Amino acid sequence: MTELERLIGAKREHFLEELKEFLRIPSISTLSERSADVQRAAEWVAAQLRAAGMAHVEIVPTAKHPVVYGEWLGAPERPTVLIYGHYDVQPAELEAGWQSDPFVPEVRDGNLYARGASDDKGQVYANIKAIQLLMETRGALPVNVKVLIEGEEEIGSPNLDGFIAAHKERLRADVVVVSDTAMQSLTQPSIVYGLRGLVYVELEVRGPERDLHSGGFGGVVHNPAQALCEIIAALHHPDGRVAVEGFYDKVRPLTAEERAIIAQTEVSEAEWRRLTGAPQPWGEAGYSLRERVGARPTLEINGLWGGFTGEGSKTVLPSKATAKISCRLVPDQDPYEIEALLRAQIAKLAPPTVRWELRALNHGYPALVPLDSAAMECAVTAYERGFGARPLFLREGGSIPVVATFTQTYGAPVLLVGYGLPDDGAHGPNEKFALECLYRGIHTSAILLEELGKRTPEALRRS
Amino acid sequence: MTELERLIGAKREHFLEELKEFLRIPSISTLSERSADVQRAAEWVAAQLRAAGMAHVEIVPTAKHPVVYGEWLGAPERPTVLIYGHYDVQPAELEAGWQSDPFVPEVRDGNLYARGASDDKGQVYANIKAIQLLMETRGALPVNVKVLIEGEEEIGSPNLDGFIAAHKERLRADVVVVSDTAMQSLTQPSIVYGLRGLVYVELEVRGPERDLHSGGFGGVVHNPAQALCEIIAALHHPDGRVAVEGFYDKVRPLTAEERAIIAQTEVSEAEWRRLTGAPQPWGEAGYSLRERVGARPTLEINGLWGGFTGEGSKTVLPSKATAKISCRLVPDQDPYEIEALLRAQIAKLAPPTVRWELRALNHGYPALVPLDSAAMECAVTAYERGFGARPLFLREGGSIPVVATFTQTYGAPVLLVGYGLPDDGAHGPNEKFALECLYRGIHTSAILLEELGKRTPEALRRS
Repeated sequence: MTELERLIGAKREHFLEELKEFLRIPSISTLSERSADVQRAAEWVAAQLRAAGMAHVEIVPTAKHPVVYGEWLGAPERPTVLIYGHYDVQPAELEAGWQSDPFVPEVRDGNLYARGASDDKGQVYANIKAIQLLMETRGALPVNVKVLIEGEEEIGSPNLDGFIAAHKERLRADVVVVSDTAMQSLTQPSIVYGLRGLVYVELEVRGPERDLHSGGFGGVVHNPAQALCEIIAALHHPDGRVAVEGFYDKVRPLTAEERAIIAQTEVSEAEWRRLTGAPQPWGEAGYSLRERVGARPTLEINGLWGGFTGEGSKTVLPSKATAKISCRLVPDQDPYEIEALLRAQIAKLAPPTVRWELRALNHGYPALVPLDSAAMECAVTAYERGFGARPLFLREGGSIPVVATFTQTYGAPVLLVGYGLPDDGAHGPNEKFALECLYRGIHTSAILLEELGKRTPEALRRS
Repeated sequence: MTELERLIGAKREHFLEELKEFLRIPSISTLSERSADVQRAAEWVAAQLRAAGMAHVEIVPTAKHPVVYGEWLGAPERPTVLIYGHYDVQPAELEAGWQSDPFVPEVRDGNLYARGASDDKGQVYANIKAIQLLMETRGALPVNVKVLIEGEEEIGSPNLDGFIAAHKERLRADVVVVSDTAMQSLTQPSIVYGLRGLVYVELEVRGPERDLHSGGFGGVVHNPAQALCEIIAALHHPDGRVAVEGFYDKVRPLTAEERAIIAQTEVSEAEWRRLTGAPQPWGEAGYSLRERVGARPTLEINGLWGGFTGEGSKTVLPSKATAKISCRLVPDQDPYEIEALLRAQIAKLAPPTVRWELRALNHGYPALVPLDSAAMECAVTAYERGFGARPLFLREGGSIPVVATFTQTYGAPVLLVGYGLPDDGAHGPNEKFALECLYRGIHTSAILLEELGKRTPEALRRS
């Protein structure tokens, strides 16, 4: 057992209590009434970075939620590592099926349940503790470290690209580390090398100027809820393909080699059933489940509302109906182009009997990280020692748009060193983070920094 | 000017203030948290009936909301009139676009704005005041009167048929008067002779057991919001016909004579636009606007919800999505049969990738009232004197299921003597009742009772 392992073992209780403190802050970035909590979470992270020994820490305001930035540059010849994460979380309502209050963390069966436990507070916390442990045991870090923890990831990072552009030199690094993804399992770590992009829109369909009596006007007014359903139904072909003209035009085809790598982590239908509880898989014909999620673009309905949604019956013909729709994108799709294609498709589909409006809420580019690089070798070693098994490589369905920004800005490799598990329930009720993932994650992050410190900056930058 | 007219003129202020009192009670029958208010409204009506001189008044509990019943049987040889109305109202939320609080009545431009002003508190009140004025001026009524005011009309009168069956003899009448409909205009009264039936259901489509991350599972799970839209979109043909197999099988075809009567009250496209504010009419090909609303069955989406409906973006794949759907029915459609047909159609449409459940919320039969009867002649005279013009006959899109029950139970003619106007906004925001409709309505109701009193019970029963 190494000194690091001993230390982590001794501090388990302390780590758990500290992370609970972080999770009790309802830093929901999408709800404006939670702005004060988002600010409070930023301050909590800043205090943690100071305690970890960062030489300089600041909370930088943006047009919406602040960025927390910390740096320690005491290893002039060594590589510089930029660690990215986010302290904001998705909304969570107890009534959505939570077994315990989403903002009162609770340990059950070795898992810590709370909104943000896995996405991304637990993973951010693991990285900060790794820095602190290295600092405490060695008196210095093996690499220069820059830490950027934002508060707008769950709303599509609207101000992050601007922040990076404005602080381009200050943030420059040889390698970027992001912990905001899931592994295959606790005994089978995996590294995400592909992330999907995103375009998120709101489609509002309007009919009559006000809600009408459905008996008095039903049958002569095109019901906007029905018209919305008609448009949505026409956005997929019966075989699961997205029915937006030009949608697949720029999709980079999968190579045989890539399909072979993806096939290593294919999900069985039984496992799919365990994870979803749904009756039968669905999706684009001609692609495996893992390919559909990781390597193919999709179009999803994230929300839908209109008319009377209360108890009982109200015979109303609603004046409008709205849907939240998002597309996950793969290389080389452009989120702004896809928004334009979607808008054009809806213009074709919408009948003249209703009015409609499409509001874009956010955009993010897809990303692919090269597999054969010195940086990736370090990540492999870190997982092997932290989790006891060689990691698999996989493409994930989620989106972390900043990964593409980092690649485009610095040409530096981005390591997606995630510690979550597939059933963590990110964005849903009963989100959790396995305590074992927390402790091993701290360990793995520390090893990763040590491994990166053994390379030269030039070697790491090569990909 | 008759004595009645003089009296009504003198009491305008008093009537207005009293009706406002009634309208301030938020007796929303569909919301369980409003039960106490519904009860309070029942007590208000009972007190009014006592003040009007009814010999016997009681509030009869049912499984949900009470029925208010009053009777005066002091004219043994004269006909017996059963007056029906309802004291419950539709839900109303200020945010839905109300210019003033729906439960703080306000007069603007000769109209009284409040939820229930037109549907049906204002019309119930007009009938009660007519009784009271006749009693005060004549010391007795020209007919025997039974008054039945229920509190469940807006939830489909689930307990009313049972109540009528249980008190069949007590409620027996020679003619039934219902004031719960709209006239063509203030200068062109009209009598509704056809009402549509109703079946109201809730369709829930379920996919995964809990909300999932749309990045992690989008593309391999059939999104229930999308599946719901696909089902709803398939419930209409492109030409506006309802696409439920067998839906039109029992629809009684319109005769040329009936189409001619309906054509007299046809709505112009300009008038339709003024009433709805929607861009273009819609509906079943081959039928006029008025025919579509009054004489053809329809299927409407009354509400729709699923997933994230808050501010901003949440990338969730919802575990379920729900729609409230209602069909308006015409003779000789049976609401229970139509429910079964709808269920069978959804079973055909629903893909195996989702689960679904259809919950029936209420049922009501359609009704047609014969035009050539002594009772109808009385109504025509009452309108001629109360509103100064001969009424037109029309079929209305709304539903008052109890009309069919009265016809089936007693074989007695049902007179739909309504005092609303087409733009009253029943069920929508800014519902109003024209003060002129109130005062003329009181007058018309009184004349109607006088006219009915001039006939024999036998003459009225003949239709």
